[in-house]
Amino acid sequence: MGKAINNNGKYHKKLTIGLFGFGVVGEGLYKALQQTSSLNATIKKVCIKHPGKKRNAPEELFTTDKDELLNDEEINVIVEVINESEPAFEIVSTALLNGKHAVSASKKMIAEHLPKLLELQKQTGKSFLCEAAACASIPVIRNLEEYYDNDLLHSLKAIVNGSTNFILTKMFEESLSFKDALLLAQQLGFAESDPTLDVDGWDAVNKWAILLTHAYGIVEHPDNIVFSGIQNIQSGDALVAKEKHYDIKLVAQAKKLLNGKVAAFVLPQFVKADDHLSFVKNEYNGVVLESSFADKQFFYGKGAGSFPTASAVLSDISALRYNYRYEYKKLYHHIVPELSEDFYVKAYVSFDDWQYIPKEKFEWIEEWHAEAERKYLVGVLPFTELKNNNWWRENNTSLILSPEPVIEDVEIRRLKKKSLELAGI
Amino acid sequence: MGKAINNNGKYHKKLTIGLFGFGVVGEGLYKALQQTSSLNATIKKVCIKHPGKKRNAPEELFTTDKDELLNDEEINVIVEVINESEPAFEIVSTALLNGKHAVSASKKMIAEHLPKLLELQKQTGKSFLCEAAACASIPVIRNLEEYYDNDLLHSLKAIVNGSTNFILTKMFEESLSFKDALLLAQQLGFAESDPTLDVDGWDAVNKWAILLTHAYGIVEHPDNIVFSGIQNIQSGDALVAKEKHYDIKLVAQAKKLLNGKVAAFVLPQFVKADDHLSFVKNEYNGVVLESSFADKQFFYGKGAGSFPTASAVLSDISALRYNYRYEYKKLYHHIVPELSEDFYVKAYVSFDDWQYIPKEKFEWIEEWHAEAERKYLVGVLPFTELKNNNWWRENNTSLILSPEPVIEDVEIRRLKKKSLELAGI
Repeated sequence: MGKAINNNGKYHKKLTIGLFGFGVVGEGLYKALQQTSSLNATIKKVCIKHPGKKRNAPEELFTTDKDELLNDEEINVIVEVINESEPAFEIVSTALLNGKHAVSASKKMIAEHLPKLLELQKQTGKSFLCEAAACASIPVIRNLEEYYDNDLLHSLKAIVNGSTNFILTKMFEESLSFKDALLLAQQLGFAESDPTLDVDGWDAVNKWAILLTHAYGIVEHPDNIVFSGIQNIQSGDALVAKEKHYDIKLVAQAKKLLNGKVAAFVLPQFVKADDHLSFVKNEYNGVVLESSFADKQFFYGKGAGSFPTASAVLSDISALRYNYRYEYKKLYHHIVPELSEDFYVKAYVSFDDWQYIPKEKFEWIEEWHAEAERKYLVGVLPFTELKNNNWWRENNTSLILSPEPVIEDVEIRRLKKKSLELAGI
Repeated sequence: MGKAINNNGKYHKKLTIGLFGFGVVGEGLYKALQQTSSLNATIKKVCIKHPGKKRNAPEELFTTDKDELLNDEEINVIVEVINESEPAFEIVSTALLNGKHAVSASKKMIAEHLPKLLELQKQTGKSFLCEAAACASIPVIRNLEEYYDNDLLHSLKAIVNGSTNFILTKMFEESLSFKDALLLAQQLGFAESDPTLDVDGWDAVNKWAILLTHAYGIVEHPDNIVFSGIQNIQSGDALVAKEKHYDIKLVAQAKKLLNGKVAAFVLPQFVKADDHLSFVKNEYNGVVLESSFADKQFFYGKGAGSFPTASAVLSDISALRYNYRYEYKKLYHHIVPELSEDFYVKAYVSFDDWQYIPKEKFEWIEEWHAEAERKYLVGVLPFTELKNNNWWRENNTSLILSPEPVIEDVEIRRLKKKSLELAGI
């Protein structure tokens, strides 16, 4: 049992890879493959933009001509880890149309081209794998595909952006201001010099659009999903959270409603101390799945960084040796539920002035506090308010969902009555 | 996108299943498959022991003749969820030799026949999948196979037995006595009428033997792995744990040592409140993996119960449609590390009388407390003491490892010196 025996030469496909991109992830992947000889996968050529740069790999490996990869019949897998959406989409489409499998880490590109990518997979029969695009080293897509066929996924919620989670952890545990926490994140490489993509929630909603397809078969452009980042959260909110023994996290959620439709959004939320997501700190990600069969599952791991991302790409490459592909069972084999707006959410809203808050839109308000500088309330409002209006994220207004925020249509009357009774009305 | 379209007819294998066993898991699987039409997998025949029983499925589905399944050429997958080791092994071997894939949930059988099962897979080229045998709905085997090729897994630790974890949670959080917690577990179906297999750690070490093969390529009979269950834990231990802000869990661990060998054992352990495993309560299981690439990963879910187990079997069946099989890369493509005894462990030991404790075997003792009835000490001892002797689990002696219990050979001198200095010696 001490010798290295090639057990699987018979049925394993040899993978000859064309790699686009040699930044931190690309180089990480290159190094990882060098250490993984048993995989029988080699990078034949790497396509990069700037030929002049010094790189930690033999010069002859590199080219600036994408066709050298895309038209090479020997190359059967294209791996794309570049940072630009449209070129990335071009590369992936061409790869699939040229009979090659494709592996990608580009969440923005994938989220913005979901219908076309699905079409290409169906049309060409080739695999398009993108585990690295959703929470990196956490095998969430693979798990949704393998474990959650059909209607049994009740809900999922996740922290999918390490950058914002790092900032929130620092604001909470070390009482840093938002500004200082962001600066620290940038210094440590957890946030870009332009952090808007992360801080404003774009990265998170892109990932959520991808995961909704695998979780429920829902194919929606990220623009159609209600989201916010952490850009409006204030230190005062963190204080209130602490008083109530909560954390604040940016949580991507999806829940099957009683009417069969799905509520989905990406918003800051108060999270109880014993919630799995409270446990997810700094740049880590976490996913909680609730279903009829497996009950509750929780996955936790690094959602970003060159090695965690490279490990996810590596795992996809590994699966290609037995022709693994996403089946999108919820999309192709079941009636796909619609995204719904017909529900209510309970939320905390902090604001500078009552004039910014459309009080009449709330079903009821459970509590409110007013200081000279800042005020806040906790109330229930129709989700359509968040979908169709912007007051909740303008003028320094900060909205943070309560734990268990979704209230179904059928419950609203009963709960409103109860709330009024409690208030002595 | 609302219609059910069969996208994958072209390359998907139709799976015709012969099922052995129709207890809670077998029936759960049957029901699950009925709801999962897109899987293109049907149970053709079910082999049971007692024909008279009333069952929730058509009578013609059942037979008592195993050859009706094993010799049927139409059946290409055997699923075995019975409760007896030797018959289960017979069934699985015959299935593989007859050119059928096999799926099993029988951890005891698998742990006790590892070399033969590996041999059969190599010899026949057929798949033998057993996700349900290790933490049920947590995809730990699949993850070890897919994400951790080669030498990069530093350590893994897990709570793999829901029964004992339920008992420990009740002892801790509700201050129940061991006896009362066990009774409650039995009433709720989390422990058998003969709970020894769970309580004494046999079930946990069986699962660990299986996971060591996938994690490190180590093939060891469970008898060769040092283990204990929770049978010796006392209420007094729980009190000490609380004082020190620890939990007590039954933890299966494996760690790569500096010398390249692997330390592995299943023992009760003090777990800090912020440890992932502290979060694993009642009948849930959890696995923490530390590696060079993905850094830290944590998986949490239900490790037992008919539906979580059935969901794991279902996931294995699903993978058989593209001929998935375990590659055991660490076993076949790398030098397999040995199990080592050349290290030390720090442990808390509570006992009735000093006569039961071989004090001279300890490298040093850091603290000790003596009451009339019960005494305890915390000290460092060579792991060989646990491997070769029984004093630590006889005569009402209770051993619980400290958090971070493993001390490497090379460190022992330095740490002993430091410990003596701290003690003012």
